[in-house]
Amino acid sequence: MNYADRLEAAVQRTGNACVIGLDPHPALMPEEFAVCRDASAPRAKRAQATERFLVEVIGRIAGRVPAVKPQSAFFELLGADGVAAWERVVAAARAAKLLVIGDVKRGDIASTARAYADAFLACEEDFRCDAVTINPYLGADSVEPFLEVCAEQGAGVYVLVRTSNPGSGLFQEHGEPRLVDRVATEVARWGEGLLGACGLSSVGAVVGATHTAELAQLRERMPHTPFLIPGYGAQGAGVDEIKPGFLAGGRGALVNSSRGILYAHKNPAHADKSWQDATTAALDAMIAELRAAAEGC
Amino acid sequence: MNYADRLEAAVQRTGNACVIGLDPHPALMPEEFAVCRDASAPRAKRAQATERFLVEVIGRIAGRVPAVKPQSAFFELLGADGVAAWERVVAAARAAKLLVIGDVKRGDIASTARAYADAFLACEEDFRCDAVTINPYLGADSVEPFLEVCAEQGAGVYVLVRTSNPGSGLFQEHGEPRLVDRVATEVARWGEGLLGACGLSSVGAVVGATHTAELAQLRERMPHTPFLIPGYGAQGAGVDEIKPGFLAGGRGALVNSSRGILYAHKNPAHADKSWQDATTAALDAMIAELRAAAEGC
Repeated sequence: MNYADRLEAAVQRTGNACVIGLDPHPALMPEEFAVCRDASAPRAKRAQATERFLVEVIGRIAGRVPAVKPQSAFFELLGADGVAAWERVVAAARAAKLLVIGDVKRGDIASTARAYADAFLACEEDFRCDAVTINPYLGADSVEPFLEVCAEQGAGVYVLVRTSNPGSGLFQEHGEPRLVDRVATEVARWGEGLLGACGLSSVGAVVGATHTAELAQLRERMPHTPFLIPGYGAQGAGVDEIKPGFLAGGRGALVNSSRGILYAHKNPAHADKSWQDATTAALDAMIAELRAAAEGC
Repeated sequence: MNYADRLEAAVQRTGNACVIGLDPHPALMPEEFAVCRDASAPRAKRAQATERFLVEVIGRIAGRVPAVKPQSAFFELLGADGVAAWERVVAAARAAKLLVIGDVKRGDIASTARAYADAFLACEEDFRCDAVTINPYLGADSVEPFLEVCAEQGAGVYVLVRTSNPGSGLFQEHGEPRLVDRVATEVARWGEGLLGACGLSSVGAVVGATHTAELAQLRERMPHTPFLIPGYGAQGAGVDEIKPGFLAGGRGALVNSSRGILYAHKNPAHADKSWQDATTAALDAMIAELRAAAEGC
């Protein structure tokens, strides 16, 4: 089944559009997993602790949200041991019926792009991602191999259009029309061949919540494109900033929170709780907030 | 020691500016490594064969060229087993005194970019890369964490400026001035803080050989930037296309060939040779051609 339709079904089933970023940042891990920040500990031990933490997080959020978004950088930091942990974490998320969006931001050309697409979207089924993020800088021939694999596997991609970092404008705002608008137009076109029965495409766009004025314009330019919206929570955007990214009825966008959920125990508001309860409380609040926002769309 | 200076010394020592791309493309492997294209073979076996092939290639080219450029996609295709093979291949290249440019084209922000930089440039010394390729789409705050690690480790980066694929113009030529020129200007600026004693920076640029007219302009815009030039050989560019990328005396650029060297046995000109002899013959020819070109600069 087409990724867009599977995503739509998952959002319907859980009644919200949250995606939880699985960024195993060693410095932020709960005390129980302090070995992750001990550079003298064997790499395999740090990878095991990373996996244990994320599998426990997955257990807490399973059934409550449609998707998770593991971030490859923090796994690669642990080399081959980290990538083995990635595979087991993805497998745990899949087993828990969560969609998995691999946040890998890959970009290369021809057979190399195809190798990346196969690596994440057509590997062993146990730890296959449902979708990945990709970088458009190299042009259409860097995206097309991913579109082929999406068509073959019922998978999805999210193309970086507008990122949430303060310096994202340096190149993304270049030119007239701005590069971000040019990329958005192409993303809408690439998506035409991968429309689901739900009317949305399996070709999505990463559109940061930290540029609110743009979100409505980009929504207009990409009317059938599922958005993946980073920047909520720890990066500063609230629910009002995000609303313009949704389609009518609160459809068409996933909103990501990573640190705000995984490391909620670092938030003074949750200082009295275990990390597990802090995570659950933060997730409760996010779900409630996004539900209210979606109802207002 | 600064990456630019180590690179300069390696080019001096070997007397040429070749970098051999280590792209273990399953479909192109010599018959002896046919297990790499047998999807039913255990992944670990395919990874071992990939490693054996590349270690043998490294043995053939060691001492003859300054650097190798492993391509991460084809390793990631084999998951954690492939990444373990990457580490052993990088270690073999380092042990053979080859500089290692990890062709990973990563790009992300803040602590995530730092995690990628640490993963490749500050990991266990045995399999640490000397430099990596990065994607600039996310802006300066995606590049700065790499610059920090370069300063700390004496490492280098090559920022994608102009790629060699036919479709690279879609976004790279966007705007007036074109995005590629805007990125080039920033790359030159980022490099100012990492100049070596040799006068070149540790912040390099990927500039495809397939856009000859531009190469001279980009060279002018980035006078202290080491170039990494893909597109030679299998991708169609010859030595005349490449010359404008060099500085006086043939300095300041590495020219990459991947398939043309690794899979020279596929070239009808070498049909009478073993794959090893075909690789050596193709390398002999490339070295001679680039030497002649460098002397003409």
